[in-house]
Amino acid sequence: MNSFGRIFKISIFGESHGKGLGVLIDGCPAGISLKEEDFRSSLLRRKSGKKGTTPRIESDEVSIDSGLFNGFTTGSPIILNFSNENIKSKDYNEIKKIPRPGHADLTASQKYNGFNDYRGGGQFSGRLTLAIVAAGVVAKKLLDGIEINAKITEVGGETDIENAVDKALKDGDSVGGLLQCNINGLPVGLGEPFFDSVESNISHLAFAIPAVKGIEFGIGFKAASSRASDINDSIINQSGKTKSNNSGGINGGITNGNELSFKVAIKPPASISKAQNSVNIETGKVEEFNIKGRHDACIALRFPVILESVAAIVLADFKLIRKTNYV
Amino acid sequence: MNSFGRIFKISIFGESHGKGLGVLIDGCPAGISLKEEDFRSSLLRRKSGKKGTTPRIESDEVSIDSGLFNGFTTGSPIILNFSNENIKSKDYNEIKKIPRPGHADLTASQKYNGFNDYRGGGQFSGRLTLAIVAAGVVAKKLLDGIEINAKITEVGGETDIENAVDKALKDGDSVGGLLQCNINGLPVGLGEPFFDSVESNISHLAFAIPAVKGIEFGIGFKAASSRASDINDSIINQSGKTKSNNSGGINGGITNGNELSFKVAIKPPASISKAQNSVNIETGKVEEFNIKGRHDACIALRFPVILESVAAIVLADFKLIRKTNYV
Amino acid sequence: MNSFGRIFKISIFGESHGKGLGVLIDGCPAGISLKEEDFRSSLLRRKSGKKGTTPRIESDEVSIDSGLFNGFTTGSPIILNFSNENIKSKDYNEIKKIPRPGHADLTASQKYNGFNDYRGGGQFSGRLTLAIVAAGVVAKKLLDGIEINAKITEVGGETDIENAVDKALKDGDSVGGLLQCNINGLPVGLGEPFFDSVESNISHLAFAIPAVKGIEFGIGFKAASSRASDINDSIINQSGKTKSNNSGGINGGITNGNELSFKVAIKPPASISKAQNSVNIETGKVEEFNIKGRHDACIALRFPVILESVAAIVLADFKLIRKTNYV
Amino acid sequence: MNSFGRIFKISIFGESHGKGLGVLIDGCPAGISLKEEDFRSSLLRRKSGKKGTTPRIESDEVSIDSGLFNGFTTGSPIILNFSNENIKSKDYNEIKKIPRPGHADLTASQKYNGFNDYRGGGQFSGRLTLAIVAAGVVAKKLLDGIEINAKITEVGGETDIENAVDKALKDGDSVGGLLQCNINGLPVGLGEPFFDSVESNISHLAFAIPAVKGIEFGIGFKAASSRASDINDSIINQSGKTKSNNSGGINGGITNGNELSFKVAIKPPASISKAQNSVNIETGKVEEFNIKGRHDACIALRFPVILESVAAIVLADFKLIRKTNYV
Repeated sequence: MNSFGRIFKISIFGESHGKGLGVLIDGCPAGISLKEEDFRSSLLRRKSGKKGTTPRIESDEVSIDSGLFNGFTTGSPIILNFSNENIKSKDYNEIKKIPRPGHADLTASQKYNGFNDYRGGGQFSGRLTLAIVAAGVVAKKLLDGIEINAKITEVGGETDIENAVDKALKDGDSVGGLLQCNINGLPVGLGEPFFDSVESNISHLAFAIPAVKGIEFGIGFKAASSRASDINDSIINQSGKTKSNNSGGINGGITNGNELSFKVAIKPPASISKAQNSVNIETGKVEEFNIKGRHDACIALRFPVILESVAAIVLADFKLIRKTNYV
Repeated sequence: MNSFGRIFKISIFGESHGKGLGVLIDGCPAGISLKEEDFRSSLLRRKSGKKGTTPRIESDEVSIDSGLFNGFTTGSPIILNFSNENIKSKDYNEIKKIPRPGHADLTASQKYNGFNDYRGGGQFSGRLTLAIVAAGVVAKKLLDGIEINAKITEVGGETDIENAVDKALKDGDSVGGLLQCNINGLPVGLGEPFFDSVESNISHLAFAIPAVKGIEFGIGFKAASSRASDINDSIINQSGKTKSNNSGGINGGITNGNELSFKVAIKPPASISKAQNSVNIETGKVEEFNIKGRHDACIALRFPVILESVAAIVLADFKLIRKTNYV
Repeated sequence: MNSFGRIFKISIFGESHGKGLGVLIDGCPAGISLKEEDFRSSLLRRKSGKKGTTPRIESDEVSIDSGLFNGFTTGSPIILNFSNENIKSKDYNEIKKIPRPGHADLTASQKYNGFNDYRGGGQFSGRLTLAIVAAGVVAKKLLDGIEINAKITEVGGETDIENAVDKALKDGDSVGGLLQCNINGLPVGLGEPFFDSVESNISHLAFAIPAVKGIEFGIGFKAASSRASDINDSIINQSGKTKSNNSGGINGGITNGNELSFKVAIKPPASISKAQNSVNIETGKVEEFNIKGRHDACIALRFPVILESVAAIVLADFKLIRKTNYV
Repeated sequence: MNSFGRIFKISIFGESHGKGLGVLIDGCPAGISLKEEDFRSSLLRRKSGKKGTTPRIESDEVSIDSGLFNGFTTGSPIILNFSNENIKSKDYNEIKKIPRPGHADLTASQKYNGFNDYRGGGQFSGRLTLAIVAAGVVAKKLLDGIEINAKITEVGGETDIENAVDKALKDGDSVGGLLQCNINGLPVGLGEPFFDSVESNISHLAFAIPAVKGIEFGIGFKAASSRASDINDSIINQSGKTKSNNSGGINGGITNGNELSFKVAIKPPASISKAQNSVNIETGKVEEFNIKGRHDACIALRFPVILESVAAIVLADFKLIRKTNYV
């Protein structure tokens, strides 16, 4: 469904080519200072326009339309709205006939009996990550003293990221990327086992973001080929500091006070200008076709702030829930 | 928290060294044939006793204590109980003093102010996967025509799995493993975006299972180093069959009717007989110590049925929710 | 919290004197015809302007800003927005100093540490029932063949309702009212025991509406003074039709196919022009004061459509959940 | 569904004539002293055996089977089990053929396609209130300083309660009753608008209890015939104390620090020894029949502790959630 979180709860709405999109935030405590310019830098980090990102450029100006009074949150639901302005929907007329490989065109059409808004991918567009970033800005306000930093470590398998993007652009193709997120300053005790482990909730939200294909915490997949004697993190003081950090800052689904770290794999955007094959829904025949519309060659470039927002949203919720661990 | 699912909802309870453990299943439709022997083969697959698994052997006999009448589910909550019989709790007296590296001993103690049941890891024990497997048995009953198969593909980085376990055992060490899960026969349309994508819910539940460190769907982490022209799955007929399956059977968080596939990395069990270092909580000094108790050298060996259960629980819930997509 | 429902889920936002208010609807199936004029008659029934209702008249024009495409719902979240236009917030400056008896002025200020938007009662205003009525319009679309009718049966203890209102207006006072809601055409089997009985969910939502002080189902409070031999409803055919209907169409929390009926007591609006006493928060002294602002003398007059909406929202959710009772 | 609460969450299971019943409590903080004898007095207050209550007498001994260690809660789920011992199920063979008026026999059979456990009403039996009372005992432990008291004020319309019960017993009939619940010592600020008002959550849980037909808060139904000038509660000091208490201690769905009060109407138990009419499901003809089995003549007599438990469960949850109102 379109809500996430137990106390700090976000609900997302909107489409790529409709009137707009946004997020409704419930459970944010009263008294948090909030103004529209607080969103600027984060929204800018997500924004397109740089090489390798879509030529569709939106102003992405947030409008805080409820839950705010005299510059502070009121304890009532906060709604953050964005409008869609730069829309070229006729680019998408063909989607109904020839569903794009790697997109939700066909699954959405089948799931919603053809009533889905297919323009620009509708609700399945990466444009909805705008709402996640906006919610992340509010979430970060609840995480005083906690530093969340995500960065791209590889694109298309290369660490020279600009080069990898250039080559893909030249070929009318797109590339995936690898991101790493590190979080410092966390208290011990966040996370609610059995089912709401830190990894569970972060991965839940991360995989809701279009293009995420994998996630690993701490040593991650390398754990499969390791021995405990190599990767167990020795505890070196009473507050739980460890010598190494292969666990990624989590034990038993609970933060252990060390750096929380995870990596995420982002796939190459499925829309490319190169010719591809897909079925023509009307005739049942496979056709070669070219995708129109404006697209990112490397969506991973826009992901660091999205991933930080994912982490912030989950941690803000955990931080509030943590208070209910005591009477 | 200790519940998972929206309609087919499971709640877990119990500890490793308490009276027992179990699972409460809500939202299971009435009229499903269910008897205690239905659980036998799955519970046996999870059971220890084979080389590389713990010498603690429990009878693991399920008791269906509510929600069943004349051999069929009634629509009321189903409670499945297991008792703990083979307990040696004195092995765990030292945990309070020297928290084991890689375990939840210290985080649990800090989170619950020292009131946690630390014996055998308490609620954080792998023993609670017994409840997951039991719930999976019921979930599979709702998934007629759907085949879920998980297998170990590597242990300690080797495909000769027995050999890898032998070497670890000989060294008083433990090894991790890699698992793959494939699901066939799924209809199109399962999964509830934006936040309840198929990947979101499977990863959420998978990461609740102790020892899981990473998950990837379809091509997974390789997507990060790929181009779209290489990994986009061409759609070859009107029902959505694709030529390749790099997406892992999911588009836009929704099943596309092709094989659903994902991989999971399992870490080596943290408890090993080799000497390790950890802090003595009372003195604040780091000590060398040896872990007592009975443990698995390769918990991954017991994971195939656990992973299948994870998938089944998520898919049973999605299947029921899917019915609410229509009036 | 500000969400209600399990599958057909509504989230409310906005304030009386902010930019506007609205409702976000999740879980509405795709393919439902919906247009702005569908809301007109229901919004008109709730509207003020008649004798006994507030002179604050808003246009109350709904804007459907997501989840709609080509006139049909898409399966994505539907957001319904209303703007506030006719605002006289300076009327409310005094609330901070002298909290109005019978209002949430003081409790809201204490709960939210003084950060609540007190203008016009903020989120506690009856204006938010506009969002409930809007959600009810969508809910009713899912309830084909089901007739929901609410009416006022008494005002201020009188059945000559106009007269009772006239007298209150003349005295600068306000009056309460009694409403009855009858629902026909329901199938057997709606309601999800143990905790989500039909009565539970209807009462939950009804008591969220400001001014509701009591609710009873079927024979209601008279049951307390009755004997079973007088009120048991004899079942007269195999589909469950009963001779009498003292149960109000519900047995065991589940609809029994007979008319569903309940009554609700609405208190007189707390804001009246007559002088009242309340504490001055700054001085701690009780003062006589007069409430400014524009208010209803009998909010019950605007309640029939609100109550129908409450019933429709609950029943739409139950109807969708009912489908998950089967595999 | 069979769970209730957001943080302090209870899940109920079991049947009247199955192996047993119980409640699973999630979200209870660690460190609460709890032992089996803590339940004794509350369970005794609910127990039958007195005149007017069923001759089925169960030992009602609670077994705390998880979540407890060394006499304190651990923060893990607490499961409380009760067994059924005094069962005479053959009394219920006729229910399948002739559904009892006023019971869930027919609605449950229709909802669950005939798979429901009809013996003794199955999950719809008043016996499940045992689990509510047990959960209430734990909830009350979180409510230090808060006094919850419920009492019967009328039975069958009379204040001489014993007399009313005697007359009903003599006639082979049953009687309803009226209960009042008063709660003192509450802080200001409990309750979570918009939808989780104090009234909403109390009424939700109260109406889940079989036999409840109506609920009112404070002045309740009398509000409908009142004027604001008569019932507005003047605020007389800065902490919000009011001169009168017609609001029942709640403003805007939030506790205002005054006494919380509500009344509940309980219907007469539907099972009576007097002859009644109902349809024979096999023949479709209405027949006169007599109900077998052992039943209460006045279930209201057992309700005070049930109602207190309802209030305690709701308030414990609100108290924990209240902590999340602040960062």
